[in-house]
Amino acid sequence: MNNSHLIIPRKLQGFWELMPKQQMLFSSFLNTIEDTFKENCFVPLDTPVLEYSETLLAKSGGDTDKEVYRFTKGSTDMCMRYDLTVPLARFVAMHKEELNFPFKRYQIGKVYRGERPQKGRFREFYQCDADIIGNETLSLVADAECVSLFEKCFKALKLDVEIHLSNRKILAGFIQEIGMEEKSTYIFIVLDKLAKLPYTEIVSQLKEIGLSQENSEKITKIAQLSGKNEEILSILRNFSKNQLFCQGIDELEETNKYLKSFGATAVTFDLSIIRGHNYYTGTVFEGFIKGKEELGAIGGGGRFDNLCSYFSDKKMPGVGMSVGVTRLFDILLKENYFNLEKYNEIECAIITFDDTLEEGLRLTTLLRDNGVRADCLYENKTFKSKMKEANRRNIKYVLIVGSDEFQSKQYTLKNMATSSQEKLPIEKIVEKIKDDRMCE
Amino acid sequence: MNNSHLIIPRKLQGFWELMPKQQMLFSSFLNTIEDTFKENCFVPLDTPVLEYSETLLAKSGGDTDKEVYRFTKGSTDMCMRYDLTVPLARFVAMHKEELNFPFKRYQIGKVYRGERPQKGRFREFYQCDADIIGNETLSLVADAECVSLFEKCFKALKLDVEIHLSNRKILAGFIQEIGMEEKSTYIFIVLDKLAKLPYTEIVSQLKEIGLSQENSEKITKIAQLSGKNEEILSILRNFSKNQLFCQGIDELEETNKYLKSFGATAVTFDLSIIRGHNYYTGTVFEGFIKGKEELGAIGGGGRFDNLCSYFSDKKMPGVGMSVGVTRLFDILLKENYFNLEKYNEIECAIITFDDTLEEGLRLTTLLRDNGVRADCLYENKTFKSKMKEANRRNIKYVLIVGSDEFQSKQYTLKNMATSSQEKLPIEKIVEKIKDDRMCE
Repeated sequence: MNNSHLIIPRKLQGFWELMPKQQMLFSSFLNTIEDTFKENCFVPLDTPVLEYSETLLAKSGGDTDKEVYRFTKGSTDMCMRYDLTVPLARFVAMHKEELNFPFKRYQIGKVYRGERPQKGRFREFYQCDADIIGNETLSLVADAECVSLFEKCFKALKLDVEIHLSNRKILAGFIQEIGMEEKSTYIFIVLDKLAKLPYTEIVSQLKEIGLSQENSEKITKIAQLSGKNEEILSILRNFSKNQLFCQGIDELEETNKYLKSFGATAVTFDLSIIRGHNYYTGTVFEGFIKGKEELGAIGGGGRFDNLCSYFSDKKMPGVGMSVGVTRLFDILLKENYFNLEKYNEIECAIITFDDTLEEGLRLTTLLRDNGVRADCLYENKTFKSKMKEANRRNIKYVLIVGSDEFQSKQYTLKNMATSSQEKLPIEKIVEKIKDDRMCE
Repeated sequence: MNNSHLIIPRKLQGFWELMPKQQMLFSSFLNTIEDTFKENCFVPLDTPVLEYSETLLAKSGGDTDKEVYRFTKGSTDMCMRYDLTVPLARFVAMHKEELNFPFKRYQIGKVYRGERPQKGRFREFYQCDADIIGNETLSLVADAECVSLFEKCFKALKLDVEIHLSNRKILAGFIQEIGMEEKSTYIFIVLDKLAKLPYTEIVSQLKEIGLSQENSEKITKIAQLSGKNEEILSILRNFSKNQLFCQGIDELEETNKYLKSFGATAVTFDLSIIRGHNYYTGTVFEGFIKGKEELGAIGGGGRFDNLCSYFSDKKMPGVGMSVGVTRLFDILLKENYFNLEKYNEIECAIITFDDTLEEGLRLTTLLRDNGVRADCLYENKTFKSKMKEANRRNIKYVLIVGSDEFQSKQYTLKNMATSSQEKLPIEKIVEKIKDDRMCE
């Protein structure tokens, strides 16, 4: 056959797409996070995927520009969003007179980065963000709420998370004290590698930047402090009298106090948490899956001084959290973390014969109306092939609707796992399937 | 103050964005539709927003090309999807060996059309699609299932829908009989205007295409047939013996039989339903809100012979339904259809004092853990201003946590609507708030 007219069906390289069963699971993953956001009184926002380039690139620079999907249509220069924070800033700046502050919003949506495809990185991926924006001021309670919300998301996902918490002001204060403020970005970049490089390498890179041997060692030691949270605080208290440094400690302590009120249990102080982004100014945190720390952070967040600085002179401090849900799910999937067999869109397959198709459809509808995910195998096949299909697809129950059953209104329900079967009226069938769910 | 450095925050023209309360409502709208899809055993799909231009424009032509957001990055020519059907075709063609057929998938996602902004039309909007794809063959039960699913979506949304159902083969058969097959596209375009133009105008436009006076009148009369479904069928039965025509009637009758089994109640035959798209080949239907017919169709769907014709020589017939949810919601919103006051992200505001903030946060957490959407008004304000805020934001309950309450563990719960208040332990507060929900 000549099929030269055909186009080869391909999806774009570096783009993520799941098969139905995996997608069912991922959707419920996203729903779980969304429910957690709602339970904590965050409101949803759904900004457009496209924005004016002027808006989206206002605060970016360096690599972001290169990665962004930017194009013109007509005379409009536009971009696909590369995060959910800049659109939030644009929205808040546009509507600041109408919103309730602190403005607690969440957004779960896809973002786009045209980076070189590599393991665990995708060009289109979901971000699950929750942020609290203040009008002029914002209490440290908001910081604790975001950290605790992050923990709650993972609890809801039944993943064992460990949160590493710091406050940037501590290291920034030390850097100020030793008079290296203008080099702070470089110092942070080096300290950010603490998890990957040995102590001596970090110290030597800091010296290259211009720090003395003593200060290089001191700051590395601060960043490496470990132990109980209270112990770390008391060591820090004796370290420096720099005002910013002390403020950082106070804030960390206060945030931790509120965290306890919020019931957070998985928080450890870790001064090595830098969290890349330059805009974080106070609280910073990252989450790791216990026993899977080698995966790196699976999300995090922090406090920023001013969300809307590019759009407004009004000060709008904020604090937020974000779950890197596409990467996380992709890893868990590849590790066979999920029992995919458990997920089936069909609970009960209805098998009919030529003269019972309509009765079968009626029963399918009745079961669905009663909350049972029933589906009628209505494609014209033999009884045997339908049973085979139900078996192959791992469907738990089969409901057989023959003429006898049609007459007696007692239908044969077969449990495919145990092969046991019995004739029951439809109400009993609903009951039985639902009872069995409870036992799982 | 010099703020010349500021960028004016703007969203792109023609793009839709809701304020938080409206978005809460819209999200629950989408969730309701998604739940309906799941209850009927459809599986989710989430294809990328971007596709190769070659893929996306394979079957398009004419206006679609102009409306599409198309650009290149590196050497890749790509487009933002303008519907969810072409990505489905690409997916099915790629994975046909791995999928279960009939393949019942749903997708709720944004699509992009850069058309000139006009009332009720947006450049980014949601489509809620559910389709059933067969492998070589597909029973008419699938057609009935899609029509019935469409009705179920609106029932779940508590909107009174009326579905107009036809089968394209009927008119196509008549056109075949009068030897005007090569003009059928034009004839369908004219008949598609039946709701807007008077009978005489339709007839005269058909004559312009080349139909005789008699045939122009005949086909217009078929399209205009009204009455009970059974009456329409019996009139049609005597109209023509053309094979395609008769097949169309048989299919319509059979689909209707299955529709009854599925419990559909809101279906009327209406031969004037054409449903634009050229690819529909059998069943076609559109939905209207009762009493709001002037809004036009708020969704619909139909049967297509071959989903994957551009990608594969294998025949994959399909039938689908789609809800135009962005336009629908936008209209309902503008008509003040929703009682927005009822929607509040906060059920209970917790008001604390300097010495009870931590106790307040603890209670907030406790309430949330027990399913109450509680939020602590923790920004540093006076009691009076906090009460005012709870009032302005229309929050139903306020929980006052003063030192007395802290001591006695009996907290003051105030119903803001009735102004009644009482001191209760926290378990009773949870109970009371939940009981009151039931009474609403």
